[in-house]
Amino acid sequence: MPVWQQIAEELRAGITDGSLPPGTRLPTEADLTERYQVARNTARQAISALVNEGLVIAARPRGYFVRDRRPLEYRPQQEFRPRPLSPEMDVFLAEHSATGREPMQTIEVAIVEPPTDVKRRLRLADGEFTVVRRRVRYLDGEPYNTNDSYFPLSLAQDSEIMRPDDIARGANQVLAEKGFLQVRALDEIYVRMPTPIETQRLQLGPGTPVAYHVVTGFTEDGRPIRVVLNVLPGDRHVIAFERLRLPSDPAEAP
Amino acid sequence: MPVWQQIAEELRAGITDGSLPPGTRLPTEADLTERYQVARNTARQAISALVNEGLVIAARPRGYFVRDRRPLEYRPQQEFRPRPLSPEMDVFLAEHSATGREPMQTIEVAIVEPPTDVKRRLRLADGEFTVVRRRVRYLDGEPYNTNDSYFPLSLAQDSEIMRPDDIARGANQVLAEKGFLQVRALDEIYVRMPTPIETQRLQLGPGTPVAYHVVTGFTEDGRPIRVVLNVLPGDRHVIAFERLRLPSDPAEAP
Repeated sequence: MPVWQQIAEELRAGITDGSLPPGTRLPTEADLTERYQVARNTARQAISALVNEGLVIAARPRGYFVRDRRPLEYRPQQEFRPRPLSPEMDVFLAEHSATGREPMQTIEVAIVEPPTDVKRRLRLADGEFTVVRRRVRYLDGEPYNTNDSYFPLSLAQDSEIMRPDDIARGANQVLAEKGFLQVRALDEIYVRMPTPIETQRLQLGPGTPVAYHVVTGFTEDGRPIRVVLNVLPGDRHVIAFERLRLPSDPAEAP
Repeated sequence: MPVWQQIAEELRAGITDGSLPPGTRLPTEADLTERYQVARNTARQAISALVNEGLVIAARPRGYFVRDRRPLEYRPQQEFRPRPLSPEMDVFLAEHSATGREPMQTIEVAIVEPPTDVKRRLRLADGEFTVVRRRVRYLDGEPYNTNDSYFPLSLAQDSEIMRPDDIARGANQVLAEKGFLQVRALDEIYVRMPTPIETQRLQLGPGTPVAYHVVTGFTEDGRPIRVVLNVLPGDRHVIAFERLRLPSDPAEAP
């Protein structure tokens, strides 16, 4: 392993195990040069690797600091199930959740031809329109994630879904009242670098990948009636699920 | 939006909507220079943005190509539930799964002091050891993901878990036979850039973030007996879950 990688590895270990907590100022290039008896350039390479991994931020001229990661607990299952099923989930929540921060969201509504991803999942014919509710969610004024929910126009029209306001009881409840109760959902999670538009919309720093979380909601008879495209910056979220064994399940899949 | 971003956006749209399918050769810098009437450097910037996002790979001197993404279907729920509960999941699988590729894995077993992450989740005392089974999984000879499973030494010793071999019925079944049946699991998914060691172990290209998937398995009385650390390259996986509404659930969380 080259020397710069060894130095980076030591710093990374400190960040991971908590001995260099968020907000800590890293040793300077001069400090590292002296401590490891290496060239300045080697020290710089080590720090730069940590910046690219998103572990450290540059705050010139004050130096480099361990990034403050307070990931928001993001639980897709909460949509159907307000309370976790097991006590461990509550413990987990208490440890991880970003409490005490002020939430805010902006909502835009548009009638659009859906992107290919959405069209295929909603099984729409060519030329069929969708209603999209585009939300940006903020915590303490910082953008946290985006959430674009698509509904077939034929289902959503003449409902509150068309209004660019918060729907206190939720868009799913509005659909349920129209006779379209969602009884299951598929979650797909892709991991990738952000597009320039996402970088801008979510004010992402370098080395910040995103989870692209696609939800498809189905009625009892298997009809897809909702697709949500969520963009979740990696430095601000942990996605959590809980799974229970069904009584009939074997201990492990063969 | 600067011109290079507009060019990148057009190419990106083509990649996303399938009109530039995997393996397609991108227009060259010269092509883009001519088509958009821009400086060579502008064209280069557009292509470079797509490389950094992981959408395109350089295969010099032949040019730039749309990356071949055939994400492996990765389903944490399958561990407890060999068959999906709903027909939509099967459809989804058929669309996405990387079929016909030859799987292979390497297994190493070690007795180690657990990393902080594992120690906390297993609620181990200082100095307690764990058994770790470290697996690298390959498809058609290409490394796909890594899977490090940690068990308290006190539970795993004198069992097949200690042998660096495949356990056909699964390590969970071995624990169940010893009286430790896992009835629930928590999944935590973090999204970040890879460490240099992960980059090397998984042969990752530029612009390839990873999902860091942590599983904690619990017995009926809430005892954590297994923690798995999975590293899943974003260009090779889609993580999928299915959720069912319980009869008692409201349509949506308040």
